[in-house]
Amino acid sequence: MKWPAHGANPQYLFDALQIPLPDQRIDFSANINPLGPPGILKENWHQLYDVVSDYPDPKGNQLKQKLAKKEEIHSSQILVGNGGAEIISLIGRMLAGKRVVIVQPAFSEYEEACRINGCTIDYHQLEPDSWEWQEGIASKLKKADALFFCNPSNPTGVFYPKMLVFELIKACEKNDCLLIVDEAFYDFLIDYESIVPYINTFPNLLIIRSMTKMFAIPGLRLGYAMADPSVIEELSAFQPQWSMNALALVAGEWCLESESHMNETRGMIKQERERLFAFYKERGIQVSPSQVNFYLLKDPALNDQLPLFQFLIERGIIPRHTMNFPGLRGEWLRFAIKGSKDNSQLMEAIEEWRSSHL
Amino acid sequence: MKWPAHGANPQYLFDALQIPLPDQRIDFSANINPLGPPGILKENWHQLYDVVSDYPDPKGNQLKQKLAKKEEIHSSQILVGNGGAEIISLIGRMLAGKRVVIVQPAFSEYEEACRINGCTIDYHQLEPDSWEWQEGIASKLKKADALFFCNPSNPTGVFYPKMLVFELIKACEKNDCLLIVDEAFYDFLIDYESIVPYINTFPNLLIIRSMTKMFAIPGLRLGYAMADPSVIEELSAFQPQWSMNALALVAGEWCLESESHMNETRGMIKQERERLFAFYKERGIQVSPSQVNFYLLKDPALNDQLPLFQFLIERGIIPRHTMNFPGLRGEWLRFAIKGSKDNSQLMEAIEEWRSSHL
Repeated sequence: MKWPAHGANPQYLFDALQIPLPDQRIDFSANINPLGPPGILKENWHQLYDVVSDYPDPKGNQLKQKLAKKEEIHSSQILVGNGGAEIISLIGRMLAGKRVVIVQPAFSEYEEACRINGCTIDYHQLEPDSWEWQEGIASKLKKADALFFCNPSNPTGVFYPKMLVFELIKACEKNDCLLIVDEAFYDFLIDYESIVPYINTFPNLLIIRSMTKMFAIPGLRLGYAMADPSVIEELSAFQPQWSMNALALVAGEWCLESESHMNETRGMIKQERERLFAFYKERGIQVSPSQVNFYLLKDPALNDQLPLFQFLIERGIIPRHTMNFPGLRGEWLRFAIKGSKDNSQLMEAIEEWRSSHL
Repeated sequence: MKWPAHGANPQYLFDALQIPLPDQRIDFSANINPLGPPGILKENWHQLYDVVSDYPDPKGNQLKQKLAKKEEIHSSQILVGNGGAEIISLIGRMLAGKRVVIVQPAFSEYEEACRINGCTIDYHQLEPDSWEWQEGIASKLKKADALFFCNPSNPTGVFYPKMLVFELIKACEKNDCLLIVDEAFYDFLIDYESIVPYINTFPNLLIIRSMTKMFAIPGLRLGYAMADPSVIEELSAFQPQWSMNALALVAGEWCLESESHMNETRGMIKQERERLFAFYKERGIQVSPSQVNFYLLKDPALNDQLPLFQFLIERGIIPRHTMNFPGLRGEWLRFAIKGSKDNSQLMEAIEEWRSSHL
């Protein structure tokens, strides 16, 4: 069968498996804040109707100003986009025909966006199972125009310290290579230390951010990039007119002000993650040392996790398969951390799996 | 000064002119249905909140099915996009490095999208002032990979009959050239005859449609392309993941069902157009023979329409300048047909202009 490329939109998974989409299901395949959007969005929802008939500001200037203030940079260092996915697509276009290296395993869109634009693609693999950074990037950078690095990593949830990023920036600079750091999940970290100030010194650093995960608005689409103004200008030339819809631009401003919702989310995710990981540890189930709102899981009794995957989806529990993550090849399953009740149901199902398969 | 490239978003125009955006203003620069969105959108607005936290279907399959049914084609012949502007951007990407001809005057995005992708660009000019089709395209097609043709034309509002399109398809076919017909405003025509069935026979025909004009949802973004499945597949490979937001996909389905709103709009636009054109004719003001919801206007007493433009915007009446429409160079102003009251205000302002400048 052909595995669908993405976690979200489970109907494509069920279509591929040729089994009907169960009525009762819990979707652990999309890494969205289980608390939902900040309250301000629902409270002011009717206001968004008023912008439906206006063309959106093609540059998203008001949101950009707010982001600039928050990140303490200039608005010319920011590009607002129609979700992180559009930013990645624009980067692929900008890199057309060039040589890129992707730190793997990673979100499949980097490779997709580069491949469609005729790039030559090489990988730098993280240490399997521990996901520690491996030596050997230097020789790859000599032949590379750009390096993609997802931090915190999707799919493992592992976070690499600022010092490693700084060393990568310098190694890339020496090789005239653009370092692209995808921080789509940075706002789920308790102890994030910002790398944004580096864009003032290093024109070879490009940071991708998503607003759809923490603020649970993947249906609205919103993301942004931060880099030297010259890089931002180059990227934005490829962006279609009116790419961000008017609702996302307004909602994005509201979201930036919802600091307490973010804090509550981070606390709740940490608590649930610790509860889940304690449960798995007791049962000898292996997980990636995630610091965010998703993790990889494997039952070490199985080489290929397909039987566990099938066991779960038949019960309406939908993990993310890892067939199209290079370096994983289905040997892990990815789960979002959801609300307490959903996580408990997952643990019950794993318990049931273990008692029937050990 | 640098004239802003687009009609919508008047703040960029006022910034460029270095005059403050007046509080009271009527925006004639964006060609949006003056009746607003169909009632169903406002009535069911609260329902759209429910899709904010879901990833949109990246293919927009449900909307695609409805469009396929309406147009009596197969869903593999349709690509749904984040507004007509995204479709144009994807076409530019598909045509990277190729030779294109643009029938001018035309929407500036065709040229933008082709230029950024390194295309060689040639023009085929419509007869100035009458906007009739001129001979001489055949020699240009010999060297062309694609021809852009906007019908009904933006900015003139002139509609060219199906027979002309059919002849263009055949002329393009003979030269192995893709014909791109932008029908963004087709649904404002009273007597539109569909060219869609031609895509079953001619794989060199690509039709662009917008849903933001008739349904007054430019803030939501929605458009689509229709062509042979091979062309659709090629185009869609360049589309970023989750490009259409989830709200637009649901709202789009509702809009397709609002036949009475469309009929009411067409009737109202025709009536207002006739009223405006009678007024202009009496006063010797020249207009393009539009059949849709906008038209070009010039005061024949002026070579350059800039004084009239400034006279109007100082009164909060915002036309569309034509500085960046090749072949127009500011010698015309474009006006949307708005509601009766707004059109009357425009006529009053024109009357005032005439009495003070004749």
